[in-house]
Amino acid sequence: MTVSSKVATSMKKSSWIRRMFEEGEELKREVGAENVFDFSLGNPMMEPPLAFKQRLAEVVKQQTPGLFRYAPSDGVIEARAGIAEFRSKETGLDFEPEHIVLTCGAAGGYNVALKAILDPGDEVIIFVPYFVEYLSYIDNHGGIRVPVETDENFGIDFEKLEAAITVRTKAVIINSPNNPTGRVYDEEMIRKLGGLLTAKEKEFGHEIYLLADEPYKAIVYNGKRPPQVFDHYNNSIVITSHSKDLGLPGERIGHIAMRPGIDEFAELRKAMVFATYALGFVSAPGIMQRVIAALQGVSIDVDAYRRKRDMLCDGLAKAGYKFYRPEGAFYLFPKTPIPDDVAFVRELVKEYVLTVPGSGFGRAGHIRISYCVEDNTIARALPAFERVAKKYGLKG
Amino acid sequence: MTVSSKVATSMKKSSWIRRMFEEGEELKREVGAENVFDFSLGNPMMEPPLAFKQRLAEVVKQQTPGLFRYAPSDGVIEARAGIAEFRSKETGLDFEPEHIVLTCGAAGGYNVALKAILDPGDEVIIFVPYFVEYLSYIDNHGGIRVPVETDENFGIDFEKLEAAITVRTKAVIINSPNNPTGRVYDEEMIRKLGGLLTAKEKEFGHEIYLLADEPYKAIVYNGKRPPQVFDHYNNSIVITSHSKDLGLPGERIGHIAMRPGIDEFAELRKAMVFATYALGFVSAPGIMQRVIAALQGVSIDVDAYRRKRDMLCDGLAKAGYKFYRPEGAFYLFPKTPIPDDVAFVRELVKEYVLTVPGSGFGRAGHIRISYCVEDNTIARALPAFERVAKKYGLKG
Repeated sequence: MTVSSKVATSMKKSSWIRRMFEEGEELKREVGAENVFDFSLGNPMMEPPLAFKQRLAEVVKQQTPGLFRYAPSDGVIEARAGIAEFRSKETGLDFEPEHIVLTCGAAGGYNVALKAILDPGDEVIIFVPYFVEYLSYIDNHGGIRVPVETDENFGIDFEKLEAAITVRTKAVIINSPNNPTGRVYDEEMIRKLGGLLTAKEKEFGHEIYLLADEPYKAIVYNGKRPPQVFDHYNNSIVITSHSKDLGLPGERIGHIAMRPGIDEFAELRKAMVFATYALGFVSAPGIMQRVIAALQGVSIDVDAYRRKRDMLCDGLAKAGYKFYRPEGAFYLFPKTPIPDDVAFVRELVKEYVLTVPGSGFGRAGHIRISYCVEDNTIARALPAFERVAKKYGLKG
Repeated sequence: MTVSSKVATSMKKSSWIRRMFEEGEELKREVGAENVFDFSLGNPMMEPPLAFKQRLAEVVKQQTPGLFRYAPSDGVIEARAGIAEFRSKETGLDFEPEHIVLTCGAAGGYNVALKAILDPGDEVIIFVPYFVEYLSYIDNHGGIRVPVETDENFGIDFEKLEAAITVRTKAVIINSPNNPTGRVYDEEMIRKLGGLLTAKEKEFGHEIYLLADEPYKAIVYNGKRPPQVFDHYNNSIVITSHSKDLGLPGERIGHIAMRPGIDEFAELRKAMVFATYALGFVSAPGIMQRVIAALQGVSIDVDAYRRKRDMLCDGLAKAGYKFYRPEGAFYLFPKTPIPDDVAFVRELVKEYVLTVPGSGFGRAGHIRISYCVEDNTIARALPAFERVAKKYGLKG
């Protein structure tokens, strides 16, 4: 075997998604990219905010001596201090720079955190539908994936969650605002989750880490800020990036924030620093660390995303689609009128509309529509969505 | 157990090195950093070349729309094309952009390549003394580390190498110019290595990848360019970064180059792209990809490092130290006059000189001196090196 058989198997399993992407690319070449409505990727089309561009220009212009040297693997003090200060203000907790580890995006952060805590056979709970890369992240470090179904509105089903927690449960991953559903957990849900995990920690006599994946936290539409996991559970760790709030997914900059007072903090922090080196990240990119230090709380124009959500939701509802109206992020996860979501996605492709089957997120019978696209793309695609809906007997 | 026991064990094993660093930091606080001669880290003190600074300013100023969006996980075409063109010129081989995968430094590149090829139990050969992080990189992906001793000049001992290759050998890692020894393999050594691996591939009926770690390739002192592994072995993969040649270790930018004609290329390339995602790198940082695209072959002033090498080597030789005079990189790996290198390093600390014990690289009885420091630091530290030498009976 040339390549790793484990990797070959994973690639085979996901190959239908890739094939679909390739078909999409093929289609763009055939009919011209401008005629294809691509809702398949969560690649924000919005440019970073002005404050970011100004700050980047400043940092590059100053070129402080040593700017490009190795950064400490937990991050430069300037960035850790900036983030800690912001988090302290947000939560009223006493975040110090040492509670922060800069990472290569949230994806890098997840690998660092899971490497730091997992031993082979440790279980990690994820909620269905899930961001598909969690499967790799958990498996990379010998963990066992434990998918737990959510309720019909993609909220936590506490009976199912409780049944899934065992003595081997080491972590629970939540992602709110959610990819692929756009669901935002409310305060009560986070409080209940914290309560359950606290009880289970007592029952089993060891830590269960709550890993909160929050890259979409700034992108919410109801005017309310999402609840702080830190308010409701001691062993909570937030993992996030500036890919979405500052529109910087190409720059790979994010961080891990450990709750002040988290159990075994010193050991945990050392393990994360070790994992940053051992996994080959070494450190988060240096210039970006300096740039984001002063931009905590800054974000792109969220109202533009709200407008897109409204256009898309109103249009699809009119065409008869059923869905949970998202409160955040830039994804919609409607039901398909037939159980076979892959077949339905193929029908949409015939109309030059690219989406992703829900099966790719562990839940068939749905599709994911990423609406981080131009308004015009939504407007022009709606009639196509409607035609396909009609074909399957949906009524507006 | 709060943190991974595997990680806890690895941390414990390496804790004496960390303790030594901490003692160094402590010392700096006590007597002032300017009074401590720190040869412990390979953190280049030279600023990046002017061409880099100009190019960075240009890229940031242009701010092409979409500049900050997700980059393809193999890298932006501009960067892959620039690197392929440079490698084609260098080697006469036909490198295409598809042979290149941009990575988060060489450390990221190693993890991507090893994830792509290793199954649990596959063996990876490394040469002693070795860059200590190889131990983590191999272990991360289930590989078995097979350390092979080098000859007295840190060259490949082909008898020992041949004896170490088994049916489970999946890869051999070389690092020339070498960290920690500064040794540069000559053409004959690479040719012989290629011949042996080709024979072993035939014997065992599967690929053995040669992974050449080349971040120091531009830093050589004899005026000759180091040999191209691509000239001597088909299944060779170069993994490198711009941390040393452009002085950019904080920016985490590097690449993997697969030899045109490498076996099972399509599958291997797909596996590397998959690994880039799965490990959470997602892509190499985007702006830096654009910046280095046009800077292939550009490097910092190598002659400055040659001058430092000469100062250090001449001074230490005069004091009676025995060592292999390095032809490249910025490390010297002298023998210690007593077998206990840790004790010897501690003696140097008493003179405010920080170095790393050879044991940290798998070879006791030596120390590593990183001379990517100011000339003045070398000049001021030489008397201290001499005093400690005298204490142990070395004679200049």
